[in-house]
Formats: sequence, structure tokens, C-alpha cells
Amino acid sequence: MDIEALRQDTPGCLNRVHLNNAGAGLLSRRTLHTMTAHLELEASIGGYEAAKQERSRIDATYEHIAELIGGRADEVALFDNSTHAWNAAFYSLTFQPGDRILTGRAEYGSNVLAYLQTAQRTGAEIVVVPDDAPGQTDTAALADLIDERTRLIGISHVPTSGGLVNPAEEIGRITRGAGVPFLLDATQSIGQFPVDVEALGCDMVTATGRKFLRGPRGTGFLWVRTQMLEHLDPFVNDIEAATWDGANGFIWHQGARRFASWEMSYANVLGLDAAVVQALELGMDRIGRRSIALGTHLRDRLDALPGVTTYDLGRDRCAIVTAKVEGLDTHDLAAVLARHDINVSTTVAEHTQFDTLHRGVHPLVRLSPHYYNTEAELDRTVEVIAEAARTA
Amino acid sequence: MDIEALRQDTPGCLNRVHLNNAGAGLLSRRTLHTMTAHLELEASIGGYEAAKQERSRIDATYEHIAELIGGRADEVALFDNSTHAWNAAFYSLTFQPGDRILTGRAEYGSNVLAYLQTAQRTGAEIVVVPDDAPGQTDTAALADLIDERTRLIGISHVPTSGGLVNPAEEIGRITRGAGVPFLLDATQSIGQFPVDVEALGCDMVTATGRKFLRGPRGTGFLWVRTQMLEHLDPFVNDIEAATWDGANGFIWHQGARRFASWEMSYANVLGLDAAVVQALELGMDRIGRRSIALGTHLRDRLDALPGVTTYDLGRDRCAIVTAKVEGLDTHDLAAVLARHDINVSTTVAEHTQFDTLHRGVHPLVRLSPHYYNTEAELDRTVEVIAEAARTA
Repeated sequence: MDIEALRQDTPGCLNRVHLNNAGAGLLSRRTLHTMTAHLELEASIGGYEAAKQERSRIDATYEHIAELIGGRADEVALFDNSTHAWNAAFYSLTFQPGDRILTGRAEYGSNVLAYLQTAQRTGAEIVVVPDDAPGQTDTAALADLIDERTRLIGISHVPTSGGLVNPAEEIGRITRGAGVPFLLDATQSIGQFPVDVEALGCDMVTATGRKFLRGPRGTGFLWVRTQMLEHLDPFVNDIEAATWDGANGFIWHQGARRFASWEMSYANVLGLDAAVVQALELGMDRIGRRSIALGTHLRDRLDALPGVTTYDLGRDRCAIVTAKVEGLDTHDLAAVLARHDINVSTTVAEHTQFDTLHRGVHPLVRLSPHYYNTEAELDRTVEVIAEAARTA
Repeated sequence: MDIEALRQDTPGCLNRVHLNNAGAGLLSRRTLHTMTAHLELEASIGGYEAAKQERSRIDATYEHIAELIGGRADEVALFDNSTHAWNAAFYSLTFQPGDRILTGRAEYGSNVLAYLQTAQRTGAEIVVVPDDAPGQTDTAALADLIDERTRLIGISHVPTSGGLVNPAEEIGRITRGAGVPFLLDATQSIGQFPVDVEALGCDMVTATGRKFLRGPRGTGFLWVRTQMLEHLDPFVNDIEAATWDGANGFIWHQGARRFASWEMSYANVLGLDAAVVQALELGMDRIGRRSIALGTHLRDRLDALPGVTTYDLGRDRCAIVTAKVEGLDTHDLAAVLARHDINVSTTVAEHTQFDTLHRGVHPLVRLSPHYYNTEAELDRTVEVIAEAARTA
């Protein structure tokens, strides 16, 4: 990868040390231009007329997403964020009293809130699978917990709260063997490193455009394995999802389209497409190797600093690094970094509730480089944190 | 209103005769610039960092929408389209077998599909209120139909399929008297003429940004009367909607925020805000007078043409005009208009199912001027249609 060229193509690299890719990645010039050009076209000839003109490019978005994750285009539905995509999968499952939802300690807060709501409504139970010694979902414990009451395994591939990569492939092997649906929240993993739905053996995957994929804010998608469709009762209806049968019924449309709604922002769709195409061109293998190497470099450097501790769990860790400085409030440290034009974010205790209860370490500063970051940027960041630790 | 200045501020007016405002209105330069500027800011400093910088403008969007419709800012939730906004209201109601949903013949297809799905799931019944002689929802019949089984009145203010304006204010008086929730789909009315939730007496209103409001594609909002909140069980959960209570429960956030999700496109939100502010500055009274006057002018001119018939129902009619030319396929007529750079759309029989079954007139050509259109543009359109009718 020609990092310098990629940075020249990324306006944000000129202004900031952007280590907040787990929040939102930086748009490339091409993605930005794709969006502004479509908005200008809409303004110039009309919103419907612009969508008609660009229909083949809009349709290609589904093909490109399918290529990215190893699925089929008709198994992809687009949404305005990953939560709505995840909702479309989860709330389309039906639960009876005593049914069990198995999840991990790293599960994202919005997903947990949905589990809690469904448990209240239906009498289903939430079972939190413990972590193994390195701190990832314990697959042996998971296998033991699966029984005839298990209706779903819902796992966050990479949590919002740290550098952990959950063993999705091993979990997929277990769920396939047991015939239990596997819903993988890949919000923080797709775009960061290769995610292949066949290799992982999951049944439903959700993702966002704005993070490591470097797409627009307000984009997300759901992939649903074709064989899973018959087990899902789409949670809402729309003219995009179904056709009225002329009497008192309706027929769901083929594939994942049954989860979609008719209206969407095509500037955002085309921006997402541009970002996905760029990821395909660069190659997810190469992207993953570099982003994880940068994360590892940063984590190692921080761990070597006196008064600084990193908190990333798991055997496999990714580009997300979480840390704390002894004697310094996390938000104060984030503010120090912001004053040096270094973009980071902080973990939110309420957003990873099982993890928070278990470890009690949040909030942490979260630093999340991506392939377009440089070792020099990381070194500069480490210097600022070292200085903050010295004076704390 | 200085129409010439408004047209100069609307790039699409230079290129097309845009009579597809019921599809998507034309963006003003200011709205377009607001969106592209925010995307550029996101690219320049990061997506989260841009949202933080623009937080007060983002928050003001809720205030401006509230001002537009006469509600309160905390009663407004933003969505990526009006269907999701409508779903957030409708699917948050609970139904028992035998409960009745009353709706009108003009009800929009996506809403009807949701009624059908809910009827199948819960055993609730859908009752279609007949039209009165002019073709609008018969309010006397509606009043007669309301009884202890009635759980909801769901009405499309202006249908997608014609120039009808349903008597929402009268319906609101009836539903308030009966204590039955009133869900008004104002997708085609908000931005076209004044819509005031207090005057209408409705409990929930949904709207889109892209049509007569001239906002971005992929935007919509829900307004929910504060007193209605206790009757709604939000249909999905999210960290934006609720906070986990630390055990097995959660607490819904105050106001309409409980229906929202955390992530959204802030370029679209700020574009919607710019469009709403422009509507407030121009004044909805003035906008409504002109848009309806242009619709009336166009309808009268078309009605006077040999071989041309308009099909708009109701006592009060708006800027939407639907028509057919004898002996000419509707899609062929739309294609003729497109060749003259006149943007129109066609009604879809499946999207207004009760109306289609009742009248059997669809598809029709739908012409929908807005305040920035001119009489000269309408005259040119009438000439093209007259010529098409002569040669049909």
C-alpha cells in the first residue's frame, strides 16, 4: 500500500492524528466526492430523477458488499445504521417463554437493551457466556450452554470497548453443529480486517459504513443467509419489503429486501459503495495486516510507559487500543490529546454493561488507528500520553 | 415571495420543469451547501468530531421542526424516512384480538401493509372508513364506526395518489372526543401547506424531509404528543432510546427520543434543518397559498383540455394533480413529458390499494408543483399534454 498516496487522498490526515476509526473513519476524497456529486445531481435534476439515472451504480452497492463479506447480493439489505440492521434481524426472530439468548460479555449495549426488552416481552432468558482466560467468549462454555432452549447466539465480533476479537469462526462451528442461529455484530470488524461469512459460519451479520469501512455516517447493512430467511418473520412491513396480495395478505419479497424500506439517502448509499470499492481494491488482507500491526505497535508502546495500562482482552487483538493513565481522569486525558489535534474517544461504561460489571475499568481512552495512520503519528501520540503520565 | 430569487437559489429550476415535488422537492443552494459543507467538515476533522462541533445546530433541528408543526422539541424524533418514523409510532401500539384499526381509502401502501401484518399477528381488524361524496374520508361514517373496539385511527393527510386533502381537523375533533389515538401520515402535507398538530388534534404525526419540505432524501421525523407516550411501548430498543438500570431492566429516555437510534447522518440532519428553516422564513401560509393555487391552476387547465381527465378527490385539494390522457398509456405520457425535461411521476396501483380497488383509475400521471414553479412552466406542461392528447 502506498500510505503517502492514501493519506493525500484523505483530507483528515492533513489536519488531525485520527485515532478514532472505531468511532468514524476518515472519508477518502473519492468517497466524499461521490456523495457531494450525487447531492449536486439531485439538486440539479431532482431526487427521484437522480436515483433513476444512477440506478446501476446503486444496484452495484449490493454486489460490492456481497463481495466484501463473501455472501450474495440478494442477501444484503441497506439501513441507516447498524442498529437498525441488527434490529431487522433480531426482532424478526420469535421467542417463547424459557427460550434462551446466549451472548458474550462484550455484547454491545443496544443489543443488550434489545435482549432485555424481548426478555420482558416474551419470557425469554438472557444467558451471558463467560470469558475464557485471555478474556474472549469461552467457546467450551458456550458449547456446554447450548441446549434445546437455545434460540439464538448473538455475539459482538469486536466490542466497542476494546481490542478484543471474539473467536467468531469457532463460535460459528459450534452454532452450525448445534443448528442454532448465529447473529454476528460485525460493526467494528468489517473494514478493519477480513470478515467472510462462509468462513465464520454465521447466519446473520450486521455492519456500519462509518467506522473502519470509511463510509458515510448514517449507513449500515444486514447480511442474512438465504436458508435463514424462513426462520425470520420481518419485524415491520413496507412497500419495499412486500407486495399486497389483493386481499388481506401480502407476499414478502425475495431475499433480504424484505427487511428494507423504500426510501433511503442515495448520496449515502453511493458513498458507502465508494468506500467498499476502495476496501476491495486495497484488499482486506492487506488492510487487516496493517491496521492490526499499528494497533499492536501502539499497545506495546503504551504498555511500556510508566503509569500507563492498556486493557484489551483476548488472544487475538485488533487495531483498537484502550488505556488509562494512573492518577489522570480518562476524559481529561482525551482532552489533552484533543488539544494536540489527536482524535480519540472514550469508552462508555453503560454501553458495554456486562463487561463494565465484570471488569469495572471503564471509562478508558480508546485509540483506534487504521491503515492510513503512520508509525510517526503513533509515536507522537505516545509522547503526549507519556508526558501526561509524567505530570499526572 | 420573490419567486425569481427563489428559483435562482434552486439549481434544478435552471434545468427542468420540476413537477415532482410529491416525489422529492428540489434542494435549495443553501440546503445543498449545508450538506456538502458538513460532509467536507467530517472528511476534514472526523465524523464524530464534526458532530461535536456542530452539536448546537444539530439540536436546533428539533426546535425548528417543533416550530414548524406547533409541537415541542422533545416530542420530535428523527429518522431516515417517514416509514421508519411511522413504524416507530404504529408498531409501538399494542393490539388484542378484535381490536380495530380505522383507516381511510387513501391510506398509503406501507401503512396498509403494516396494518395487514399486525392484523395477522394479533387478530386485530382493519376497517376502511368510506369516502363521502367529494371523495374524502367520511367523518360522519368515521364517528359512527368508532366504538370500544377502536384502538387507532390512521389517516394519510394527503395521499400519494392524488390532490385530496383529508379533513384532518374534523377527524382530530372526533378522535379527541372519543379518546382514540390519531396517527396522521403527513408525508405529503408538511412543507406543502400549514400543518399544526394542535389545530389538527392528532396524537402522532409523521413526515418526510424530501418532498414538499425540500430537504434531503433519507430524512423523516415523528412527532408524538407527550400525553401519548404512556400508551406506546417502543417497538425496538437502543442506547439512544433507553438506559440500562444496572439489573435486568432499562428506563426509557424522556420524550420522543425513546423512539430514536443513536447513529444518524448529520449531513442529512443539517440539510433537513436548513430546509425547515427556509420554510419557516418563507412562512407556511404563503407557501401553502401559492402551492395550492398552482395546483388548482394546473388542474383547471388540464380539465379544460379535450381528451384529458384529472382524478383528484376531495373538497379541499392541494398542489398534487393526477391526470390521464384518453388513448395514451400513462407511462408513455410520462415519457413524453420527460423528453421535454418536465419531471413528473406516475401513481402505482399497489401503493394505494383501497383507492385502487375502489376507483380502478391507477396508474395516473402525477404532477406536483411547488411554490418555486411558475405559471409559465405550467402552461408549457399543459401544451405538451394537449399535444399528446391531440395525437393520441
